[in-house]
Amino acid sequence: MKNQLTKLLNVKLPIIQAGMVWCSPWQLTVAVSNSGGLGIIGSGSMYPEILEEHIVKAKANTKNPFGVNLPLIYPQVEEHIELIIKYKVPVVITSAGSPKKFTQKLKAQGIKVLHVVSSAKFAMKAQDEGVDTVIAEGFEAGGHNGREETTTMCLVPEVVQKVDVPVIAAGGIGSGKAMAAAFALGAQGVQIGSRFVASAESSAHNNFKQLVIDSIEGDTKLTLKELTPVRLLKSNFLTEIELAYQNEATPEQLKALLGKGRAKKGMFEGNLKEGELEIGQVASLIKKVQPASEIISEIIQEFNAICRTLGSYKF
Amino acid sequence: MKNQLTKLLNVKLPIIQAGMVWCSPWQLTVAVSNSGGLGIIGSGSMYPEILEEHIVKAKANTKNPFGVNLPLIYPQVEEHIELIIKYKVPVVITSAGSPKKFTQKLKAQGIKVLHVVSSAKFAMKAQDEGVDTVIAEGFEAGGHNGREETTTMCLVPEVVQKVDVPVIAAGGIGSGKAMAAAFALGAQGVQIGSRFVASAESSAHNNFKQLVIDSIEGDTKLTLKELTPVRLLKSNFLTEIELAYQNEATPEQLKALLGKGRAKKGMFEGNLKEGELEIGQVASLIKKVQPASEIISEIIQEFNAICRTLGSYKF
Repeated sequence: MKNQLTKLLNVKLPIIQAGMVWCSPWQLTVAVSNSGGLGIIGSGSMYPEILEEHIVKAKANTKNPFGVNLPLIYPQVEEHIELIIKYKVPVVITSAGSPKKFTQKLKAQGIKVLHVVSSAKFAMKAQDEGVDTVIAEGFEAGGHNGREETTTMCLVPEVVQKVDVPVIAAGGIGSGKAMAAAFALGAQGVQIGSRFVASAESSAHNNFKQLVIDSIEGDTKLTLKELTPVRLLKSNFLTEIELAYQNEATPEQLKALLGKGRAKKGMFEGNLKEGELEIGQVASLIKKVQPASEIISEIIQEFNAICRTLGSYKF
Repeated sequence: MKNQLTKLLNVKLPIIQAGMVWCSPWQLTVAVSNSGGLGIIGSGSMYPEILEEHIVKAKANTKNPFGVNLPLIYPQVEEHIELIIKYKVPVVITSAGSPKKFTQKLKAQGIKVLHVVSSAKFAMKAQDEGVDTVIAEGFEAGGHNGREETTTMCLVPEVVQKVDVPVIAAGGIGSGKAMAAAFALGAQGVQIGSRFVASAESSAHNNFKQLVIDSIEGDTKLTLKELTPVRLLKSNFLTEIELAYQNEATPEQLKALLGKGRAKKGMFEGNLKEGELEIGQVASLIKKVQPASEIISEIIQEFNAICRTLGSYKF
């Protein structure tokens, strides 16, 4: 089966792996793309020379389309874009900024542009700038998050109603059940982050992967809303942030507490005491570390089974 | 088609109307139950003598099962329970408190007990107390809300995994699409609030209904987390709350600001300036005031159509 999205991206399966900072190296990209999904290099944690290495290795190890996730607030975003164009990366996912500046430049090179939005308003703006699809990401998603706090259940149908481009659902999706739910809401594909953090090929530190596996419902929190809202896993650092709030910290004090390099320290180096650990609410449903290919085949099998079951429902 | 839940409740359709304070009189209850769903009287805004009147009229106007929603923090909860038993109300939905105290008393009278939970932990506790089903209500729901902030997309599969009783999904559900999504996640039924606020039979004031219809995505906010978290529609009162937060109000000051009778003033009397307006994120998807019977038939038709479509999906 094909739909508008799989045709557009030239992939077999409408599963996009999120380009999570510190967790999304070429190995994960390749594993996902070789399994029929769209693997994504997370460039938000890479210097340009590192990104170049990852693009080169991804190209060498899969014949299938793959992409690069590009947070538009990244300081060397222009250099990243030159590399993406130089190597003809098939897909770019832009986030955390306006799609105005780079969408046409990328599209002129035949690169597909997917833009992450947290509201219907931003989705319409992104469509006006010519993006190929929007990724509607709900409040339950890990990492950086919108200010509207609209959940996937409410955001996806709203965005589907408001734009003509295909809509990819993100936030809270880590299973075939949730993928089927997203399709019921009108999505044509899903972007999955947290479950791929806990993949064998992710560059998340084993300490972090283990904490994700062990986490239970209620263990994440959307915090630092005065800076950029971010969903974090319960940790020593999150406790420090909450103490700061209790002491009525100013945004400047929160910024100082956040400091620099916390995400690398936590997610990549496995320092669970000082590090920042970004993950979605769906972490509580993730039970083991698996190869990306196994994750994808489990999700698709479950999706197909749920759809078959729903097909027999009629009240 | 029947499932475990419709058999348990002896209803044709697995749609439960939420017993919303100030919006859920016997007229709405009867309209929903006569359409095949489970209509619910919202007793949280009624003195015992008022509740008695609504129960008597509901019984006189439908042969189908109906229920009463009972917030367990309600001061005259014991008198309400006596009335429910006296009139043999078929179903009680308990919320905002521990199911320990009254579940067995109600069940001994043959009354079905459904308990609203915001976490898997509470769902397991409710099951231990013997409730017939749990209603798993996500962060996007209107009115009073859990502290965990788990969304419907993440909460429902978690609760389904943890309990054996049928699970009803709530929060963000106002359409057949969302109902199908809830079923994909493992729910056997849905509880719908906001969309019934905007029904012809709801006792919400027309001013409030109109504001719900006019609202757009991002117009609700979960606030007053230091007291009891509550999701409100954008209004003058919400602005006052946000100003109080900017001025670092203490919980005592917030309590004073909330005062008494705000919900009645806003939702029932239509005072949009001073009143409290409780509604879910799904409000932005609600486009008109309709009779409850029309709402239910639209939802079921859409649910059946979406399920049929999903039944043809296979990747």
